[in-house]
Amino acid sequence: MYTQDELSDIIQNGIDHIKYPDLATRLYDPVRYTMESGGKRLRPLLVLMATNLFKEDITPAIQPALGIEMYHNFTLLHDDVMDKAPERRGRATVHVKWDDNTAILSGDAMQALAYQLIAETPAYCLKEVIDVFNTTNIEIDEGQQLDMEFETRTDVRTEEYIEMIRLKTSVLLGCALKVGALVGQATPAQVQALYDFGINLGLAFQLQDDWLDCWGNPLTFGKRIGGDILCDKKTFLRIQAEKAAPLPVADRNDEQKYIDTFKQYYIETGAEQACRDAIALYGQKAKDCLKQLNLPDEKVAPLLAFVGKLENRKV
Amino acid sequence: MYTQDELSDIIQNGIDHIKYPDLATRLYDPVRYTMESGGKRLRPLLVLMATNLFKEDITPAIQPALGIEMYHNFTLLHDDVMDKAPERRGRATVHVKWDDNTAILSGDAMQALAYQLIAETPAYCLKEVIDVFNTTNIEIDEGQQLDMEFETRTDVRTEEYIEMIRLKTSVLLGCALKVGALVGQATPAQVQALYDFGINLGLAFQLQDDWLDCWGNPLTFGKRIGGDILCDKKTFLRIQAEKAAPLPVADRNDEQKYIDTFKQYYIETGAEQACRDAIALYGQKAKDCLKQLNLPDEKVAPLLAFVGKLENRKV
Repeated sequence: MYTQDELSDIIQNGIDHIKYPDLATRLYDPVRYTMESGGKRLRPLLVLMATNLFKEDITPAIQPALGIEMYHNFTLLHDDVMDKAPERRGRATVHVKWDDNTAILSGDAMQALAYQLIAETPAYCLKEVIDVFNTTNIEIDEGQQLDMEFETRTDVRTEEYIEMIRLKTSVLLGCALKVGALVGQATPAQVQALYDFGINLGLAFQLQDDWLDCWGNPLTFGKRIGGDILCDKKTFLRIQAEKAAPLPVADRNDEQKYIDTFKQYYIETGAEQACRDAIALYGQKAKDCLKQLNLPDEKVAPLLAFVGKLENRKV
Repeated sequence: MYTQDELSDIIQNGIDHIKYPDLATRLYDPVRYTMESGGKRLRPLLVLMATNLFKEDITPAIQPALGIEMYHNFTLLHDDVMDKAPERRGRATVHVKWDDNTAILSGDAMQALAYQLIAETPAYCLKEVIDVFNTTNIEIDEGQQLDMEFETRTDVRTEEYIEMIRLKTSVLLGCALKVGALVGQATPAQVQALYDFGINLGLAFQLQDDWLDCWGNPLTFGKRIGGDILCDKKTFLRIQAEKAAPLPVADRNDEQKYIDTFKQYYIETGAEQACRDAIALYGQKAKDCLKQLNLPDEKVAPLLAFVGKLENRKV
């Protein structure tokens, strides 16, 4: 079995060697720029880890893994255009460094390149891989649509929020694991268990992100603490708190005080507790999915460690 | 063999019955709006005609045909955002009727839905169909990129222009015919001949469009005569004329006189003749491709009629 560091090296090497056509370089410059900007490479890692649970040889999973990473970066690129985000991973976003049209078109090309990489999946599971990828692709657009709609709605229910983050975040983790399992020729039950593990892990991660926005370590969180509060984002915490008490009155001009008022409100309404409970719940569900794999503990340990990380991140 | 009217009915019926999810309706409203807005449905027609050359039963080709039409409409939707076009087929474009973000996201969803329809291709040719579709998808983005670059370049060569329209227009016609031929289980030589027919037909069509912009019948052309001249578009005529003589001096404020001056310039420099020669050349090449099919004349007649149409449109 490969270690995570070995798998990360394989992924980075693969990304460095993606072949872009010589023609129309202005189309591919932003693609290279986006792909080389790093990130955790979590999704291709999950593909390779899933394959490696069932097979020593992970080679046939590498191209689809890169395809899923390409696709993920395409969604970030177009989301940044739609959100008018100036930065991503500490660098100017494509629509800022170039322009909106370049970002739209390069994103479209990335979706096409993603499909080209995914079509390199071995014939024995090509149809299943393309089917789950297609479904996931559409679900992610649905998630982004709901996210945009929620911005102007005042009546978003907790279940709707969970469904939105499932579509926007979780399904691609589930898809990555399912693709890896299919390439690894796992049983249908194992394929499903890994997909469900990804869904629950994704939900827990996203809720964790909501929580860390308030109580994370400013040195490690990467984003400004209280950012969601300042831009009135409808997070799990806010939706949950509003069910118990109306929004607090606070002076927006004193940003730190505004953030502190909301954090206090989240604690007093029980929303903070509800958020931690939900993270624990989905973390536990994720663990249960791993048990259903019927694989030796040492095989499953690296995936289980993602759930552990979740618990540690919380301090 | 089906008549073209019968095939058109099958396509329209298919489009009317595409199933969109109930969730996130705001995502699918612009998709429906775009798909119901008509157009010639040329690409799905070519798919079905190609299959029908080799098989009586065209049913297995319907879903991929709809997928290619969905994809074509996605490219128009995103092109309209990039060109800031206010209208398409006499109706407000999606980014005007809704907004830019809706147009970007709905377009992305249309690309995903296109792949979902194309994945319904029979297993015996799925891999080949997806491969040609992926290649075409990327080529079209390259064509759009070149088109945008040409706007600000003053040194575009004729061969570069032909390559741009090959990428932007022809490859999707070639792809449609190839997909139809693959579903029809044609021989590799027949598949290639039909693809090449599509390429040449597409080039001839596009050059014809450049010509009609100057000398078309205002009642049937659909667009304003001289539109390309007024917006300084680098068409075949203009590139060809500039090789022979510098651009004419004309008063932009008198639009009709400006158009007439350029038309005269195109005739005097021989660009008009060169354009008609090129249309005839690619039309002839298209006919030659059909001969290579080794099929009875009555089978090939409907495809040949497209080339004939080209010749008639010129009067």
